[in-house]
Amino acid sequence: MTCKHVLALSGGVGGAKLAAGLAAVVAPKDLTIIVNTGDDFEHLGLTICPDMDSVTYALAGLNDTQRGWGVKDETWQTMAMLRALGEEGWFNLGDRDMAMHIARSWRLRAGETLSEVTAQLTRELGIAHAVVPMSDDPVRTQVLTEAGWTDFQRWFVGDQCVAAVSDVRFEGVPGAKPSPGFADALAREDLAAIVVCPSNPFLSVDPILAVDGVRAALAARRVPLIAVSPIVGGTSVKGPLAKMLAERGQAVSNSAIAHHYSDLLDHLLIDHADEADVSGLQARGLGVTVTMTMMREAADRARLAKEVLALAGI
Amino acid sequence: MTCKHVLALSGGVGGAKLAAGLAAVVAPKDLTIIVNTGDDFEHLGLTICPDMDSVTYALAGLNDTQRGWGVKDETWQTMAMLRALGEEGWFNLGDRDMAMHIARSWRLRAGETLSEVTAQLTRELGIAHAVVPMSDDPVRTQVLTEAGWTDFQRWFVGDQCVAAVSDVRFEGVPGAKPSPGFADALAREDLAAIVVCPSNPFLSVDPILAVDGVRAALAARRVPLIAVSPIVGGTSVKGPLAKMLAERGQAVSNSAIAHHYSDLLDHLLIDHADEADVSGLQARGLGVTVTMTMMREAADRARLAKEVLALAGI
Repeated sequence: MTCKHVLALSGGVGGAKLAAGLAAVVAPKDLTIIVNTGDDFEHLGLTICPDMDSVTYALAGLNDTQRGWGVKDETWQTMAMLRALGEEGWFNLGDRDMAMHIARSWRLRAGETLSEVTAQLTRELGIAHAVVPMSDDPVRTQVLTEAGWTDFQRWFVGDQCVAAVSDVRFEGVPGAKPSPGFADALAREDLAAIVVCPSNPFLSVDPILAVDGVRAALAARRVPLIAVSPIVGGTSVKGPLAKMLAERGQAVSNSAIAHHYSDLLDHLLIDHADEADVSGLQARGLGVTVTMTMMREAADRARLAKEVLALAGI
Repeated sequence: MTCKHVLALSGGVGGAKLAAGLAAVVAPKDLTIIVNTGDDFEHLGLTICPDMDSVTYALAGLNDTQRGWGVKDETWQTMAMLRALGEEGWFNLGDRDMAMHIARSWRLRAGETLSEVTAQLTRELGIAHAVVPMSDDPVRTQVLTEAGWTDFQRWFVGDQCVAAVSDVRFEGVPGAKPSPGFADALAREDLAAIVVCPSNPFLSVDPILAVDGVRAALAARRVPLIAVSPIVGGTSVKGPLAKMLAERGQAVSNSAIAHHYSDLLDHLLIDHADEADVSGLQARGLGVTVTMTMMREAADRARLAKEVLALAGI
């Protein structure tokens, strides 16, 4: 048996780009993309799964590359009318994006699992690869600020990440089982690599690691765990990672990423801009590849995906 | 006490026009608009109330007068994406209209009554008059066709009313109580008139009459019950009324309307085009007013409303 199955762990935007790159170069049967659901929340009676949708839209070619999130060719008529009706307007939902939330929500309420719903809706959008939630049990990320524990999206979107975060927790774990697709992928005999996409370790990857048994399964891995760093040029490309590291009193560097993943990590891909980090990372016993980690175009995504796969001999 | 409160019973489009006319000429405290909810249905996890929304949009000046239904300046992005996701596309929902269904649905699910939800959402749209569902208990109209009992919207929109209807029933009655606003209006000491708007008697008005106690309360009325006929020029202005009358073997005439309402009706306003019906109606002991019942403009609606009110001495 040729071992060539790739298990990718992804958060939203940055992670979704590498996930799309992997999907561009790996056959559907050889790739499982596990997506963080800690960002999910219930709003206006809809179950909204921002990271699942970012990955889905990226793989379907529907993502808005200018805005950096959501669906391209988007309009905002429903949201404007919701505001006119006095409904909460702090979380912006586009008209095309809204269809995803409506379809997912009624199906979940009818008893389908998030895995089943996602398989159905991604298939309809022409996605042949497996986009799989980390768990079918609800996990909800919360951040600790001066105002107390706050639901993730309230802080991330409602507060624009302004409040300092002193801690992060995941409501629902322990007790959240890996989704069937995640459990299967972890147990595959032909598994060749585990890829951690360039997502926020605290907010996007830690929820996946917090799912029951996942950290132990990864610790017992027989294949390389390869991460693409979300740090570029000594800061985070997008989102609050740099701010969170600073609030923890940590340097915004690849050493902090390596420190965070600790012995789960075998190899880290970092950007040319951070070449100075190489010796420190190697001193930790890590494999290091210096490359261009920014993914502006589809070609960047596929090239970076190939570099990751090559490290695992795929 | 001056008796001047008006209780109007309305279905969708035609009824909504007269309801808007009444709202244009009657002070908010002196008008209660009761709306048929038999057309309501659950679709894609949303509770959709077509007649409630037609009346609401007409009163808010948001109705699309070209299309004849829904919200003006409408777009259809969510619906197109729902179809791309493989969801049912037979019931067209606009992006602006969708906001109403989303807001109503989460509020109903959170435990608010349809009366409470409607009061909240109409107030937000600047409507000062009381738009009140006939009942807060679900009533669902079904039609009997060759295919058996069919949910109303499946036949009305899905089948475009093609199948012949041999019977109509209302799931949920008996057992559906009048909404608090309806019960209050029926019991008002200052009630001066009951107005039946030009809506389909079988599909839009009968469900209201079928609510527990309503038919008896109307039979015991001490004020005139005045209807505007939905027949113009020997046919129905819009919708399947003429077709349904023909399928019942009845002439498409004002006599059929009078026969249907029987002794609940005191006065019928009919169109100039149907002047030949006058003697037959008078022979039944009915008051008859011949006027222009088509409402093309806001001025027509207000003029007709004033004519109705004058008949009750208001």
